[in-house]
Amino acid sequence: MAFSLRVNPDVSAETHPYISTGLRDHKFGIDIHEADAIYERARALKNLEARGVSCHIGSQLLDVRPIFEALDKVLALVERLRAAGHTITHLDLGGGLGVAYREGDQPPEKRAFMGCVRTKVEGKGLTVMVEPGRSIVGPAGVLVTRVLYRKRNVSKEFVVVDAAMNDLIRPSLYRSHHDIIPVRKTDRPEIVADVVGPVCETGDFLARDRTLAQVAPGDFVAVMTAGAYGSVLASNYNGRRRPAEVLVEGDKWRIIRTRENYDDLVRGESV
Amino acid sequence: MAFSLRVNPDVSAETHPYISTGLRDHKFGIDIHEADAIYERARALKNLEARGVSCHIGSQLLDVRPIFEALDKVLALVERLRAAGHTITHLDLGGGLGVAYREGDQPPEKRAFMGCVRTKVEGKGLTVMVEPGRSIVGPAGVLVTRVLYRKRNVSKEFVVVDAAMNDLIRPSLYRSHHDIIPVRKTDRPEIVADVVGPVCETGDFLARDRTLAQVAPGDFVAVMTAGAYGSVLASNYNGRRRPAEVLVEGDKWRIIRTRENYDDLVRGESV
Repeated sequence: MAFSLRVNPDVSAETHPYISTGLRDHKFGIDIHEADAIYERARALKNLEARGVSCHIGSQLLDVRPIFEALDKVLALVERLRAAGHTITHLDLGGGLGVAYREGDQPPEKRAFMGCVRTKVEGKGLTVMVEPGRSIVGPAGVLVTRVLYRKRNVSKEFVVVDAAMNDLIRPSLYRSHHDIIPVRKTDRPEIVADVVGPVCETGDFLARDRTLAQVAPGDFVAVMTAGAYGSVLASNYNGRRRPAEVLVEGDKWRIIRTRENYDDLVRGESV
Repeated sequence: MAFSLRVNPDVSAETHPYISTGLRDHKFGIDIHEADAIYERARALKNLEARGVSCHIGSQLLDVRPIFEALDKVLALVERLRAAGHTITHLDLGGGLGVAYREGDQPPEKRAFMGCVRTKVEGKGLTVMVEPGRSIVGPAGVLVTRVLYRKRNVSKEFVVVDAAMNDLIRPSLYRSHHDIIPVRKTDRPEIVADVVGPVCETGDFLARDRTLAQVAPGDFVAVMTAGAYGSVLASNYNGRRRPAEVLVEGDKWRIIRTRENYDDLVRGESV
């Protein structure tokens, strides 16, 4: 059986602790300094054949230099493994390409990124794989939600919407920023508010202390860049049904996942 | 229509920021100092009749003194409202009673707690409600999971189990501690390890740097006190099916929620 080991190239990437993956206190992969010995050990096992090396240093990187630094280290490992007699044919560089969660973010340009990868691997006889999932589906999705009401207490303002942490947990789980904009363009002045859902928990927020266009009950707003780690992390918390998903193609749209109903909430239950 | 307002009695309770709810930068309720004026305003609205006052200062309190402090403030408000001519008949004290997430935690004793509440409200002509959900269902549930394998890297040890953050997100979302014990008693020595799941994310952990009984692949361990904010916060992240739920009564057990299947993962989807 052919195998590939995931190695941690000991490259530090600036990202949220939960989406940084290649550090020594994380569960993933093996330290690159241990890799040669492990491949050597695998050689003694007649049903295993080393064919590849993979790595993944972290997610949502806006600066890709750490990925290239990792690639250099992995390529050096490939050379050592080949010199030791292993037939390495595959290299998986993992993911990490960030997306623009804030207006003005400069995410890596994919063509330029792949051009640099090509320069480094060309002629080396390697099939190279990359895993840029977030950068493909992240910007492709928005979470559209209706403003229920606005509320002001002694210290701040709240925009209460009908989407909640169960629909998009990234702000609460990763302290992530998602831009929130009105679906219909407006020239109303801006306000500063927390955008929160109806779930009975303080962790239920989509944005905190956010400057956004003034909105009124009934308005729709779009929580941007919600295509990755959005619906896949959704739950039924507070007895809430997961929302419908709509595919927009040009000026056409269709529902590709129906809204859950109350039967879905108790499916499989018996008393 | 009778109504009750939720007021924030300006009592600070030591708990996780996400489960503290009665502070001024939270979305819930109204400041108690604004309450008299709001009830007064409601009096002018002929279809509204003030009947109650509610509060909820936070969740998972092991020290209930802040709840009593809040109760005193709410009772003083009730007196003021009655003096102003409102017929206040109901008081909802909210929840907050903590549970023992760690062996040795001393959660409030419910009978003693209610005795103190009774002393404060007796003879005041109030129907009193409390919402001790977590303290009822939290200790009633455990998450049982199988050890897949153990792994050691250069800096630490990992116990990889087949439950993950999608099954119990509290450790990741709230940095919560849940005791983890072997299902079969053992006198093996202890180890220190991260207990992690198979989800491809660093946030996928059930415990970090945890001292627990040595376990081997195939062993079952129980993640304790998982009955509250466990299955209700579960997701299908990483294409994982939510687990079966089993009710144990004495020496009998039965499945009360079936394990999800792959059809459940794509229910309602169309292409």
